[in-house]
Amino acid sequence: MLVKVGKTKKWFTASWFEKGTVKVIDQRLLPFEFNIITLKNHRETASAIRDMAVRGAGSIGAAAAFACAQAVLECKQEKNWMAKVSGSFQTIAKTRPTARDLFYAVERIGENIYGKNLQEAKKAAVDEAIKIGREYEKNGKLIGKHGSKLIKNNYGILTHCNAGWLALHDWGSALAPMYFAKHSGKRFFVFVDETRPRLQGAKLTSWELLNEGIKHAIIADNAAGFFMQQGKIDICIVGADRIASNGDFANKIGTYEKAVLAKENGIPFYVAAPKSTFDLECKNGRNIEIEHRPSEELLFVDGFDGRQRKVRVAAFGAEALNPVFDVTPAKYVSGIITEKGIIKPKKSDIRKVLRFEKRHRAE
Amino acid sequence: MLVKVGKTKKWFTASWFEKGTVKVIDQRLLPFEFNIITLKNHRETASAIRDMAVRGAGSIGAAAAFACAQAVLECKQEKNWMAKVSGSFQTIAKTRPTARDLFYAVERIGENIYGKNLQEAKKAAVDEAIKIGREYEKNGKLIGKHGSKLIKNNYGILTHCNAGWLALHDWGSALAPMYFAKHSGKRFFVFVDETRPRLQGAKLTSWELLNEGIKHAIIADNAAGFFMQQGKIDICIVGADRIASNGDFANKIGTYEKAVLAKENGIPFYVAAPKSTFDLECKNGRNIEIEHRPSEELLFVDGFDGRQRKVRVAAFGAEALNPVFDVTPAKYVSGIITEKGIIKPKKSDIRKVLRFEKRHRAE
Repeated sequence: MLVKVGKTKKWFTASWFEKGTVKVIDQRLLPFEFNIITLKNHRETASAIRDMAVRGAGSIGAAAAFACAQAVLECKQEKNWMAKVSGSFQTIAKTRPTARDLFYAVERIGENIYGKNLQEAKKAAVDEAIKIGREYEKNGKLIGKHGSKLIKNNYGILTHCNAGWLALHDWGSALAPMYFAKHSGKRFFVFVDETRPRLQGAKLTSWELLNEGIKHAIIADNAAGFFMQQGKIDICIVGADRIASNGDFANKIGTYEKAVLAKENGIPFYVAAPKSTFDLECKNGRNIEIEHRPSEELLFVDGFDGRQRKVRVAAFGAEALNPVFDVTPAKYVSGIITEKGIIKPKKSDIRKVLRFEKRHRAE
Repeated sequence: MLVKVGKTKKWFTASWFEKGTVKVIDQRLLPFEFNIITLKNHRETASAIRDMAVRGAGSIGAAAAFACAQAVLECKQEKNWMAKVSGSFQTIAKTRPTARDLFYAVERIGENIYGKNLQEAKKAAVDEAIKIGREYEKNGKLIGKHGSKLIKNNYGILTHCNAGWLALHDWGSALAPMYFAKHSGKRFFVFVDETRPRLQGAKLTSWELLNEGIKHAIIADNAAGFFMQQGKIDICIVGADRIASNGDFANKIGTYEKAVLAKENGIPFYVAAPKSTFDLECKNGRNIEIEHRPSEELLFVDGFDGRQRKVRVAAFGAEALNPVFDVTPAKYVSGIITEKGIIKPKKSDIRKVLRFEKRHRAE
């Protein structure tokens, strides 16, 4: 997306491949500092994913693809290069457990280099990684186009966490429909859940919406139900980290809460995600591994007071439990906004989108 | 409650009356500093309520009663003293809009000085204020005794915000049953919602539970639904700021969300509050005024890194909406734990408890 940095506006994706290095916008420093870091090899890129310098299902997918390309480029001799690459790919795949896109990207690069010699594999890996990045850009744009039809004038929209261009490499999943609606002149208001523990709503979504001039307010995660009760919210749109074949999906912790509340208040609840987030081998939500992160994310808050600063917000000696995703059963979902259009959260519709994808790739 | 301060343990209430001054434990500094402030007149005590040095329905009620006593003591001449006191009582009543206990306390002191001369009124106001404080202590203890019957061995209990002794002058409303269950040897685990925006769960409830040696973990407000889904929560107990005559009640923002989730997951949801929190003149939840506080509470977080420090957590230029209470309709409530026992959230049961109260006071 077009971002104002200093005095000029420039188009950015969440990460990009540049002469064997991977560049990522360090999302841990946003919205207070816009800093690009250079990752010299696949280990550094894997660390950037693990440490959440780059986060969000699609952005993890694209960065992982670039990391895989780096891993292949790092092989110096023909002998045993596949074994070496295989180990590197495992390092990359083990950085985060929940987002499907990570494994999707690693598997796609793997399929594309299989059976090739090292020189061919290097070219294939780089080409495929760049292609994956471009597909996220294209798919985000299509999700935006399809999803924008759901947004009517004067709508109040609730979104959770950050599912914008920072999270889907470009355009976004949940936010892309809002960008399209804004570009086509619609007026609406976004309620942005701040999204504890890491506050991606307050820090990233609000920053993205300010950049696009979209009217919004940050609210406590606790207040989403209040605004639903008050009739201020007409539609909810969230992203996804993994969608099972029955339409159950994992997304940032709290998504399940908002989905239940939307149903209780008769408000449509939409999920936005490209095909790379679907996992046909996952029968239902119970099979999705949920990442638990350190309790420090709850016991401390990262903020800014002239410089980045971490402050303690809990009693000394207190403990915390920190699951960072939850699973929302398909029954709470009104529809899934994909690059192929809006589908119902059921097996047949999901298979149709995925089959198209397989044909498309076989061509 | 018995609190370890430095090397000794001492019994504290949230505030107390001492030679015409009001002493309060400054809850804005907890859990990082235990500091007692001295409020020299009714204006200072009103400010301490407004600025949340003392907070929580019952603690506001007791502190407001003490502030009223100060206001009467401040009158120097018989002439027009009632007009002066009336203005002071309005200052005290205007500090916070939602908690019923504030108005309950001001009205009770008002009734007790009505028709008296200044000297009689001074004695009556001080006596009644101290009596109100003692009633909170007694009622918190009774709520604990009745509510503890709901807690079984190995239960997982969810609580929201802080409804402990810091919030009800002594013992607490939602936490008192846990203190009684602990004292009677029951084993259980408490899931403490951190409770954004002001983090009273992470800062105050966790501090209270650590002090009593009760096992617990702080969780993101977003994670309550996750732990319900996982079958880890057997009962929810929360406090209340105002209970309408039909059983609808106002409490800290997010309570409505947790109540809806509890119902969806088949988990009993209890409210704990003394009679002073009931408002018979309030027909239902729609008539309860909801306080909205400054957006700064969301855009910044108060924490500690060697000293108390406020850090920004949202993009520059971002706006926030900050309703700090919500209303939970009676249909989500399994029961209300009062000092008279556990009642159903319906008109007839509520009137029975309140009638007893009126008879009692008339005696």
